[in-house]
Amino acid sequence: MKIVNLIEGLNIEYIHADNDGFEAKMNLTPFHDQTFGYLHGGATIAFGETVAGYASNQITADGQIALGQTITANHMKPKKIEGYILAKGKLMHKGKAFHVWSIDMLDENDIHISHLTVTNVLVSINKD
Amino acid sequence: MKIVNLIEGLNIEYIHADNDGFEAKMNLTPFHDQTFGYLHGGATIAFGETVAGYASNQITADGQIALGQTITANHMKPKKIEGYILAKGKLMHKGKAFHVWSIDMLDENDIHISHLTVTNVLVSINKD
Amino acid sequence: MKIVNLIEGLNIEYIHADNDGFEAKMNLTPFHDQTFGYLHGGATIAFGETVAGYASNQITADGQIALGQTITANHMKPKKIEGYILAKGKLMHKGKAFHVWSIDMLDENDIHISHLTVTNVLVSINKD
Amino acid sequence: MKIVNLIEGLNIEYIHADNDGFEAKMNLTPFHDQTFGYLHGGATIAFGETVAGYASNQITADGQIALGQTITANHMKPKKIEGYILAKGKLMHKGKAFHVWSIDMLDENDIHISHLTVTNVLVSINKD
Repeated sequence: MKIVNLIEGLNIEYIHADNDGFEAKMNLTPFHDQTFGYLHGGATIAFGETVAGYASNQITADGQIALGQTITANHMKPKKIEGYILAKGKLMHKGKAFHVWSIDMLDENDIHISHLTVTNVLVSINKD
Repeated sequence: MKIVNLIEGLNIEYIHADNDGFEAKMNLTPFHDQTFGYLHGGATIAFGETVAGYASNQITADGQIALGQTITANHMKPKKIEGYILAKGKLMHKGKAFHVWSIDMLDENDIHISHLTVTNVLVSINKD
Repeated sequence: MKIVNLIEGLNIEYIHADNDGFEAKMNLTPFHDQTFGYLHGGATIAFGETVAGYASNQITADGQIALGQTITANHMKPKKIEGYILAKGKLMHKGKAFHVWSIDMLDENDIHISHLTVTNVLVSINKD
Repeated sequence: MKIVNLIEGLNIEYIHADNDGFEAKMNLTPFHDQTFGYLHGGATIAFGETVAGYASNQITADGQIALGQTITANHMKPKKIEGYILAKGKLMHKGKAFHVWSIDMLDENDIHISHLTVTNVLVSINKD
């Protein structure tokens, strides 16, 4: 397999998003390895920023896009490179100027690996 | 090129670390593309977490490792997929229990793309 | 009334803490006024840091104290100086080295005013 | 002395702000005491949020106000209740939609007590 892109490498199986939340699944592979067989925290954050951006863009008005602005990640438990990470996102704030997501990252045993807070700013784009 | 790992994909040319700071360079490729030709914020964060972890581990005592604990990223400017990102890290706190890094992410035109604060916790490991 | 101290000024009516969470109530007064009749975001954060510290110290081992290390606050809605703020804390991580709290700040109408993530580091103290 | 307000209680001696930075001084009193003679981290954050808000509002366009949106604080050293805290703010991003400040909190011995990152969102107000 030739990985040409970060988002492909993350190996996200699905994301289900609705108006106030999402669930997404990332299956772990050697791509996610920090070096010693453990999940790279940066992969977890890239996963969260990717799916929060996707979910915000599903619910923005026409002519707007959502861009990642501020991200805080708390890594709480190490995770071996096996199984998967489930991201459970809750839209805490749906404003006209920005969205704020709370995201719990759980592994296949329901262990709370990381928590993210992601703020996406909504920017108007010209369509001409 | 077959990319098998996030850290390889980030394409970090060098990291120069000393006792109170570091500089690292990440050359941008299609790997870093968020989709529309712009740098994925998650790649910037993964870069910062990787090099801050490396730099902390250079200065920890024997029998300790530094693990990413809390990361905050502020994305300030979009960046096209060309040129590079320079990470300039300053060790704000070098404690016995944790390190705190401030990292400025600048592009090849010295534009301030992102700012990260990374806390690494120092954990004792058994060597038996 | 003579206010001599930040914690007194915050006017916390109660905090109920158990092993994995807490609820605390802060009644708003002119003390909390940012200037134009709205709640000062710094008061909300001081409230959160106070009660998360209290709650962590209820569950630390003898000879340890919990100190605030990293705090992230997302302010989502303005709040007029009337009524109260309810802090609902969830202990996301209870480790040997640190605790991580997620705190929702809700007003008397159940509006989500702010969200905080508080990391408390556990430090050993000499008792001699 | 009767303290009626958080901002008064913080005891800010001065704030000097210009286009890309500020310096502000907070003299410590029993108001700032967390309980055992040490500076309450929440007081440090309230100080930072207050002065960053003031500094942003000095440079916003007519008809706009700056409101605190996201604040991250890293507490690095304890501080006894004596002397003062100097806040040195750098405007990392001056956008049309938001400002991002990096604030170093130093004591009278130039010890780095805390670091804050403050994002202020710029909101249009009607003046009619």
